[in-house]
Amino acid sequence: MIQRPTDALVRVVASCVCGSDLWPYRGVRPTAEPRRIGHEFVGVVEEVGAGVRTLRPGQFVVAPFMVSDGTCPHCRNGVHTSCERSSGWGGPDAEGLFTDAGQGEYVRVPLADGTLVAMPDHPDADLLPSVLTLTDVMGTGHHAALSAGVGPGSTVAVVGDGAVGLCAVIAARRLGAERVIAMSRHASRQALAREFGATDIVAERGDEGAAAVRDLLGGVGPDQVLECVGTKESMQQALDSARPGGRVGFVGVPAGGPELPVSQMFATNVGVCGGVAPVRAHLEELAADVWSGAIVPGKVFDLVLPLDQVAEAYAAMDERRAIKSMLLP
Amino acid sequence: MIQRPTDALVRVVASCVCGSDLWPYRGVRPTAEPRRIGHEFVGVVEEVGAGVRTLRPGQFVVAPFMVSDGTCPHCRNGVHTSCERSSGWGGPDAEGLFTDAGQGEYVRVPLADGTLVAMPDHPDADLLPSVLTLTDVMGTGHHAALSAGVGPGSTVAVVGDGAVGLCAVIAARRLGAERVIAMSRHASRQALAREFGATDIVAERGDEGAAAVRDLLGGVGPDQVLECVGTKESMQQALDSARPGGRVGFVGVPAGGPELPVSQMFATNVGVCGGVAPVRAHLEELAADVWSGAIVPGKVFDLVLPLDQVAEAYAAMDERRAIKSMLLP
Repeated sequence: MIQRPTDALVRVVASCVCGSDLWPYRGVRPTAEPRRIGHEFVGVVEEVGAGVRTLRPGQFVVAPFMVSDGTCPHCRNGVHTSCERSSGWGGPDAEGLFTDAGQGEYVRVPLADGTLVAMPDHPDADLLPSVLTLTDVMGTGHHAALSAGVGPGSTVAVVGDGAVGLCAVIAARRLGAERVIAMSRHASRQALAREFGATDIVAERGDEGAAAVRDLLGGVGPDQVLECVGTKESMQQALDSARPGGRVGFVGVPAGGPELPVSQMFATNVGVCGGVAPVRAHLEELAADVWSGAIVPGKVFDLVLPLDQVAEAYAAMDERRAIKSMLLP
Repeated sequence: MIQRPTDALVRVVASCVCGSDLWPYRGVRPTAEPRRIGHEFVGVVEEVGAGVRTLRPGQFVVAPFMVSDGTCPHCRNGVHTSCERSSGWGGPDAEGLFTDAGQGEYVRVPLADGTLVAMPDHPDADLLPSVLTLTDVMGTGHHAALSAGVGPGSTVAVVGDGAVGLCAVIAARRLGAERVIAMSRHASRQALAREFGATDIVAERGDEGAAAVRDLLGGVGPDQVLECVGTKESMQQALDSARPGGRVGFVGVPAGGPELPVSQMFATNVGVCGGVAPVRAHLEELAADVWSGAIVPGKVFDLVLPLDQVAEAYAAMDERRAIKSMLLP
């Protein structure tokens, strides 16, 4: 139901489970009482408030994983995740008004003009998964590559073979990387990484992984390392892998730390940039490539379930039986 | 004395005391036995080894603060501080051969073709101080600005009003920054910062300092913050000052830590790049501006002493009576 003139009501056509949704699922982040969850969804505008200017009922829209107004200084700087009026899905906003979450049937979208991006048409069943990745994982992989400074001719290593890491492979190639080394120990994910443009696969981790990456590149580490996990080990592996003067682009939610080793960074001139991805900033650009078929990130979905089987969607990802689950009404 | 065919023998015309030289001076870093010190010097080539191709006796040369061969992959990447054959001044190299230090009369310079940069002429007394800054502080300030991504129109804050911080002000303006806020509590350093192009001065530190910087910029932090100190407090101030999506360029030698707060960086998308400055990489470019008079970084020297009064040169810097001391033979 519309509650503010800047709201839109969206009927959810597809949503998905994010790796970060697994934290409360696993109890790592305690949940005090039952609440709505999910921050990745696409759908059709059913109704708009009186103040909405750019959207109309019937349009197919993508909702990035955070609400943003698109007009504050931080949005204008392309950092929509730091929007002065930002809020998340499934919680109260700054004024205490509850925002719906994406794993449901209808969602009230605040600041609809800023938050939602209308697609050129309603995607068909083949295109739908790729459009759905624009809500989070494709934009997040892109943010990792962009933060690390990937460009034409770059040599890149990607740490993490989840949906974000796999999308980071796409993003790195899309930005012109010449070599993209995917670090993965799972055959099916290795295959998908190759399909997405990875030129090499390294199964080793830690020191051995860093050494294997250097060996592939003639003894010099990659220009950029995309850290798409968020653990102490994955960040250290990323820092150890990059060549002197290289850069780590990180988008893995830091799982309780650790802090970064500043003395190592000082000695090696390896920088660390990135963070929570402002996927809204690049959504139009990435959408154009999805609609043209230039990129097909939707292949990360290897499990599709109706919304009433959402429990299995979580379980399959938790047990690493699925890379990513898509939920249909 | 020439010991390898790639050596040059340089008669020191001027050298200086670096902030980092104060560490062993203060006993923060213990020194086991008397040793030569100093890594910032300029002079005249007296003799070259048989394998030296680009230098000849009589040339006036600048020695960056580290030895590098100029040909290894890291040098070609512009990260001469990670040269595969790098060594410092005043210690043994990889093969155990002792390298002279700069605060002396003559220095044997290893890998002379890679390490030394010949100036177009012998600088006169007015130009000498600025040429001397090319050995370290001007290049280090430049590295901070470059690592942070300063460019045309940037808003910049500089943390640290030592010689490096003051040179970082020059560097930021030189790269096109529109606003440069120097953080300093010392009247003479504030004045020099203004002379170097700082548009604003903030005397507050910590949270108050960060707030004062934001206030000057309409409530949004600077695009880049140049961290030229190296303490826990200065790095935290830098991270707290930058706008979301901004970047800290750090060149202050980390004084025993701390580690960087990765969760804060994740939430704000403030990146951290920089490290020990490969001043060799940009020496020709900066030298051109010194010789043309476009920049006059030599003003950071506010104390000139003969080499035999080196003890006072250290004491004056240690007690913050001098920004930076220049030593003449």
